[in-house]
Amino acid sequence: MKHNFNAGPCILPKIALENSAKAVLELDNIGMSILEISHRTKEFEAILEETKSLWRELLGIPEGYQILFLGGGASLQFCMIPFNLLEKKAAYLDTGVWASKAIKEAKFFGEVNVIASSKEKNYTFYPKDYTIPKDVDYLHITTNNTIYGTELKVDINSPVNLIADMSSDIMSRPVDVSKYAMIYGGAQKNVGPAGVTFIIVREDILGKVTRPIPTILDYRNHIKEGSMLNTPPCFPILVMKETLKWLKSIGGLGEMQKINEAKAKLLYDEIDRNSIFVGTAEKDSRSIMNICFIMNEKYKHLEEEFMTFAKSKGMVGIKGHRSVGGFRASTYNALPKESVQALVDCMKEFEKMKA
Amino acid sequence: MKHNFNAGPCILPKIALENSAKAVLELDNIGMSILEISHRTKEFEAILEETKSLWRELLGIPEGYQILFLGGGASLQFCMIPFNLLEKKAAYLDTGVWASKAIKEAKFFGEVNVIASSKEKNYTFYPKDYTIPKDVDYLHITTNNTIYGTELKVDINSPVNLIADMSSDIMSRPVDVSKYAMIYGGAQKNVGPAGVTFIIVREDILGKVTRPIPTILDYRNHIKEGSMLNTPPCFPILVMKETLKWLKSIGGLGEMQKINEAKAKLLYDEIDRNSIFVGTAEKDSRSIMNICFIMNEKYKHLEEEFMTFAKSKGMVGIKGHRSVGGFRASTYNALPKESVQALVDCMKEFEKMKA
Repeated sequence: MKHNFNAGPCILPKIALENSAKAVLELDNIGMSILEISHRTKEFEAILEETKSLWRELLGIPEGYQILFLGGGASLQFCMIPFNLLEKKAAYLDTGVWASKAIKEAKFFGEVNVIASSKEKNYTFYPKDYTIPKDVDYLHITTNNTIYGTELKVDINSPVNLIADMSSDIMSRPVDVSKYAMIYGGAQKNVGPAGVTFIIVREDILGKVTRPIPTILDYRNHIKEGSMLNTPPCFPILVMKETLKWLKSIGGLGEMQKINEAKAKLLYDEIDRNSIFVGTAEKDSRSIMNICFIMNEKYKHLEEEFMTFAKSKGMVGIKGHRSVGGFRASTYNALPKESVQALVDCMKEFEKMKA
Repeated sequence: MKHNFNAGPCILPKIALENSAKAVLELDNIGMSILEISHRTKEFEAILEETKSLWRELLGIPEGYQILFLGGGASLQFCMIPFNLLEKKAAYLDTGVWASKAIKEAKFFGEVNVIASSKEKNYTFYPKDYTIPKDVDYLHITTNNTIYGTELKVDINSPVNLIADMSSDIMSRPVDVSKYAMIYGGAQKNVGPAGVTFIIVREDILGKVTRPIPTILDYRNHIKEGSMLNTPPCFPILVMKETLKWLKSIGGLGEMQKINEAKAKLLYDEIDRNSIFVGTAEKDSRSIMNICFIMNEKYKHLEEEFMTFAKSKGMVGIKGHRSVGGFRASTYNALPKESVQALVDCMKEFEKMKA
């Protein structure tokens, strides 16, 4: 058996995969595949509507917010956000590689005020000590930093429009959407496969910049057409629907959060107990989605050996990102606790052999 | 049995659907789905490379051209093309709704010279009578017009960089790629499902404009990263690979063209013979991909009835676009000749009942 700790694209619920595979062969006995029908058919429109409803229900999205499913990835949003919303100046939190990429794009469009950064400590913590200026068009944050294993975990109060890249922790816990002007992210962690980006946007923040915006980059046009300004990524949306149905079936975000916290605690406790391993993120910034750890100096030469050992026990995708090194276990929604236990067992066994 | 004449997303080869469904359950016995593995794994990189190779081989793409598979649809390209390539002035052929959308976007970036248009005749023909100016950055054409059923069908000579939207006739016939500076399109007709856009671009045309280009909209960055600047639409790319493998197995583009021309002839001959129906496109502009026809004045009141009749015989997606009316049969690569024959039989039977 494989234990899939991939950082994304990553493990998805088995039932979602089974239903999606069925739809590739034939959708609901209509004699055609989900891949073969027009996005203007009643069948696809029903899929799109159900997916939107599941988002509204699971996340408790209030009135006044629109939901879009677009192609191009969160990276395209790094550009679309300032294109649509940055008139003069925006504030950004620099919490990792993805946050820096968002900052880089914003600079094409206006002044960027990086109000806090953990870069000097290789992004090992989530900054808490900063003041949000009131003269900016918005504040952009990245709630979870996949590479460094740090996470914000709370909904902050912001005096200006708050925009959050939640690519890697969306739907891992209940969120107070009303505190955000916009939440977006690539689907390929907790909510689906690669190829679709979700955007939840409070409509009243749009239409305030003076620059002309090309049609396809203007959120208002996508909203006007109900997320069908052009052909949407139909199959990734169907997989998203199946993934969210599973999430609802296990009890929604409150239940999911408990499961995720239990999984994370299991692994962090072992990291803290085990004499060979050490966590890389500061304790109060630890992510419940991506758990990064390395080996103590004394055992550093054994990293390759542990990797081989863990692989032989079925662990997949636990190599740390090159900028952190060591190991990273991504414990997204669909990862069963049994997989975390299997990794913990590996670590214990390795300690017995080596320490 | 269903006869799938959808205009796109549309019918795909059965073997491609079967292999893709299998990969959703489990990819090549690796214990994980194609939807669950990182795009940085050797498994996905092999899929990406094989897909690129199939493009090079089937279309005969010469050295100096790069192949990209991006998200966002051809509509995003309407914006990226002038962003990257329009310094002062560009020429466009206005041959339909999609061409007009491309023109609209280009105007955000510079002067647009529409050198020919068939708009006044509701786009019923493909303009041939025009002069390509030499002082433009490029000429943009739409080789097949899905809505109106007109198609260029030849590779024209252009004294300036020729850019072609081939969304709806790519891989339907051999193409002399060397005559184009760029060929692009949404995959969801002949080469795959919705969610991935193909771009074939001659690298030397890039980097000539003076405006700054946001990272994700700059083709050079996508090329530098081998089409993996950010997470690509992995599954749509896999379906594309399976679709192209099928195309290769039936003999490639020469063979495909013969089959497509035979299918189109079968239907056009019936349209011309049948006393009830009449084609909407001028004969020398007729598309071999989208075949549009209406009813003669005398029978126009029977359109609904024919639609119901055809549906009862298994025809799907033959309603014409609202701007043309009547009927449209899309006869893309994967549509079997038997389906065209079934539609022809319907038309004959209807004539016997009514004429």
